[in-house]
Amino acid sequence: METQKVLLSEKEIPRQWYNIQADMPTPMKPPLHPGTGQPAKPEDFAPLFPTSLIEQEFSTERWIDIPEPVLEKLLTWRPTPLQRAFALEKYLKTPAKIYFKNESLSPAGSHKPNTAIAQAYYNKAAGIKRLATETGAGQWGCALSLACSMFDLECKIYMVKVSYDQKPYRQLMMKTWGGQCVSSPSQDTNFGRKILADDPDCSGSLGIAIGEAIEDTVTSENTKYSLGSVLNHVMLHQTIIGLEAQKQFDVLGIYPDVVIGCVGGGSNFAGMSFPFIRDKIHGKEVDIVAVEPTACPTITRGPFAYDFGDTAETTPLLPMFTLGHNFIPKPIHAGGLRYHGMSPLVSQLVVDNLIQPRAYNQLQTYQAGLLFARTEGLICAPETNHAIAAAIAEAEKARDEGKQKIIVFSLSGHGLLDLTGYENYLNGNLTDYSLGEEEMQESLKSIQSYPRI
Amino acid sequence: METQKVLLSEKEIPRQWYNIQADMPTPMKPPLHPGTGQPAKPEDFAPLFPTSLIEQEFSTERWIDIPEPVLEKLLTWRPTPLQRAFALEKYLKTPAKIYFKNESLSPAGSHKPNTAIAQAYYNKAAGIKRLATETGAGQWGCALSLACSMFDLECKIYMVKVSYDQKPYRQLMMKTWGGQCVSSPSQDTNFGRKILADDPDCSGSLGIAIGEAIEDTVTSENTKYSLGSVLNHVMLHQTIIGLEAQKQFDVLGIYPDVVIGCVGGGSNFAGMSFPFIRDKIHGKEVDIVAVEPTACPTITRGPFAYDFGDTAETTPLLPMFTLGHNFIPKPIHAGGLRYHGMSPLVSQLVVDNLIQPRAYNQLQTYQAGLLFARTEGLICAPETNHAIAAAIAEAEKARDEGKQKIIVFSLSGHGLLDLTGYENYLNGNLTDYSLGEEEMQESLKSIQSYPRI
Repeated sequence: METQKVLLSEKEIPRQWYNIQADMPTPMKPPLHPGTGQPAKPEDFAPLFPTSLIEQEFSTERWIDIPEPVLEKLLTWRPTPLQRAFALEKYLKTPAKIYFKNESLSPAGSHKPNTAIAQAYYNKAAGIKRLATETGAGQWGCALSLACSMFDLECKIYMVKVSYDQKPYRQLMMKTWGGQCVSSPSQDTNFGRKILADDPDCSGSLGIAIGEAIEDTVTSENTKYSLGSVLNHVMLHQTIIGLEAQKQFDVLGIYPDVVIGCVGGGSNFAGMSFPFIRDKIHGKEVDIVAVEPTACPTITRGPFAYDFGDTAETTPLLPMFTLGHNFIPKPIHAGGLRYHGMSPLVSQLVVDNLIQPRAYNQLQTYQAGLLFARTEGLICAPETNHAIAAAIAEAEKARDEGKQKIIVFSLSGHGLLDLTGYENYLNGNLTDYSLGEEEMQESLKSIQSYPRI
Repeated sequence: METQKVLLSEKEIPRQWYNIQADMPTPMKPPLHPGTGQPAKPEDFAPLFPTSLIEQEFSTERWIDIPEPVLEKLLTWRPTPLQRAFALEKYLKTPAKIYFKNESLSPAGSHKPNTAIAQAYYNKAAGIKRLATETGAGQWGCALSLACSMFDLECKIYMVKVSYDQKPYRQLMMKTWGGQCVSSPSQDTNFGRKILADDPDCSGSLGIAIGEAIEDTVTSENTKYSLGSVLNHVMLHQTIIGLEAQKQFDVLGIYPDVVIGCVGGGSNFAGMSFPFIRDKIHGKEVDIVAVEPTACPTITRGPFAYDFGDTAETTPLLPMFTLGHNFIPKPIHAGGLRYHGMSPLVSQLVVDNLIQPRAYNQLQTYQAGLLFARTEGLICAPETNHAIAAAIAEAEKARDEGKQKIIVFSLSGHGLLDLTGYENYLNGNLTDYSLGEEEMQESLKSIQSYPRI
């Protein structure tokens, strides 16, 4: 029998994270202080993050050691397998080999604990007692709740209302690990109360929820903020995914032609792709594909500009692709991809043509997810289905061209708590959304006074 | 760092199942034909199962080859890790080492696909087009739906009403894999309609659902029946769990003092324990503990007698511990343990003192499950929580006695689709149920005309 899963032993787990800032052809533009328009300094982030994480945010060191207590917790489920999708290949009649890196095996069901555990550890080490955060689809809230339970921290989660309502089990999961989860906009912050006063039916957005979590942080004792995506240190912690995958391809003695991930804020995509982008920068031929929803087409259609990470305008201005910080995407099921901005690192790499951005609509991604479930057996998160759709498209292209390509995608999480999306798809109740040009231009007015890049 | 997970390579997956009938000190009593009272013959099972599975049901061969196509599908997630519960040990301040065999990593989230895949394969090979089955908590229905999608078979599932209502995501999961799931008692069979006519609010039971699935089977074309527990061939297919665990303990160079599993129909428990019971029969000192709920205390309080496997009285009479085939357990959340009978193999081994039966109430098991989730990070199924409660009790005993025991339990499945149980527990809305003596005697009247053993 051919090998289906390439496993690494616990001893082979990477001991360092990879920091792509050391290798980028274009140096990163700095975040800006919104008041002065000057580059934000590390101390500007001090109210939100412990020093250790701020150092990582600004670091240009190529390799950063993973602390031993973090590795110990990661070993609960890591290294994750690199699996071959034989049944899907057979169904597609493709000569391509399709691999996926299975991040759904964590206790929270996604890649998110890779950084949640690191962040909880660094905060605990800095004497912090409580973390506040936001969550879109709920994967991040679950991950941080899990990590806080591992390091004995309190955890408060503001969950985007549309997902809070669509995914009731997510809140229960956070609660089981001891976290406190509220629907955002909430009555627990001034910002949330203000939005609810204007629009009691507001379906929420990641931008709003971030604003609430930041307000909570700066107005509460012994509390820091924790972000599950976008920032450099988050991308850093996720690189363990791609580093493992590289070791696993080494075991097979092959190298992928195409590396695929879904992108919302960018963390799963970055985690999988950055180690491969490093090779690409150094001359390796490999296509790096980032897939987002047409309902929230940040990197395919937004401008590269300075914008706030949140709707409340409390973060520094970040250099990124953005649809404007007031943008509220349509309630597609892929809640983790409903974010107006994009990781500045991912954004810069898109500008430098190291990443191919692509947008798929909702129906196409569910079709891909259903095919994957019925061939490979794994029911994936709606976010992941974007990556699967791209992998299928690449495999079909390889078939039509008669090429034996090696395709790999990151299976960012399982969909066992997102089954209402599948139900709607199976019942024919799902709709495609593509952001209209006028709507986009309207939304971008909120950033017209900030520098375009 | 100490090893947390003992992994086996794909090449180390067991190639044969272990059949405990070859080693049992007391030969199995035969199933009886309910009409004649004579031993049932293999051909009596022909309307329900393909010949290959009936042969396995009656076989006394010690080792039975696992077909290559079954192995291929099992490799989607197997071999599963044997994990050490360091954080739980630390919390309990016990010198005991606690291991668990993590069966929650299958695409369906439990051990059930181990036999579902084998049964789907054998039916497909026999030219069958459609399988009918029942499910309690929903784990089995999901597993068979998955397996049928892998081997391109239709699948109809009768799901016990109390679980159908408590666990809406379960039906969606079955549907995503293409299975058809209805609440039992249903309007789709004569037996279901009769029960609903007598009691429209009937919360259902596994016995009723089995009756419906059997009626469906014998009245439909090209259809066979598939059972997720109780029968010998099901126990056989599950032994891959314990066989892997033995190899993993060999890697560690240790042998467990206590092997623990939860028991409903017996399949997870048997799968984990039978290879160890083989060693015990041959002189090894090892405690084998089977944990059931006090609400359905089959092996701790029921008689060893001949009884039907289903409420409709359509199966052969099986020699087993039973509470009577009309018994409808209270609606505890551990739906998979709400079965009136018990695997005849497990029953005989209880009689022969090779297994220690134990019963825990619902609150104790949720307390154990919550502690496990908040130390080890894994949220387990309510059924599994029974095994965790026993592992904790053994570890506390080892602490009080100052003994360095090695404890292992089977983590039969995750609880991500059973979170309402945790919610009720956290909100103080869960109740303990212990079956009353009078109620039990009343229920046992249904079997007073069949032979006690």
